[in-house]
Amino acid sequence: MTKFQAEIDVMPKKEILDPQGKAVTGSMKNLGLPEIQNIRIGKHISLEVEAADEAAATQKVDQACKSLLANLIMESYTFTVTAV
Amino acid sequence: MTKFQAEIDVMPKKEILDPQGKAVTGSMKNLGLPEIQNIRIGKHISLEVEAADEAAATQKVDQACKSLLANLIMESYTFTVTAV
Repeated sequence: MTKFQAEIDVMPKKEILDPQGKAVTGSMKNLGLPEIQNIRIGKHISLEVEAADEAAATQKVDQACKSLLANLIMESYTFTVTAV
Repeated sequence: MTKFQAEIDVMPKKEILDPQGKAVTGSMKNLGLPEIQNIRIGKHISLEVEAADEAAATQKVDQACKSLLANLIMESYTFTVTAV
């Protein structure tokens, strides 16, 4: 078994309003950074997974995202898996 | 002015306990994924920034992270900036 490090991004889907991101975009103006626009805020999850190979690790991380880490109705996810 | 896309990860510092991550690590066992360990949960932020060049964009994103997006006492951040 090899240990793999997974880095997962879970973001609100494009069609869905992100009120937290909108609020922070507004705050950037007050901070003197009006050049910053279209902020969207999601989750970043890092984890370790033991698996026989990279394909098996990818499959386990995908299963974890689908069953617990992301709400697929409102969120989409992307991830990378690297051996450590 | 060029438009740049920034992808920022804000994570709890290694020395700091991440109770949300610990709870999710526990849930993985119940989901039949005991191979998944050491989950840490932070924020992923994507934003657009207008700047003259990549160095200026990097400086603005760094300023945004320091002043609003990350709590530097408990969190550390990394980001990438790419022209779009």
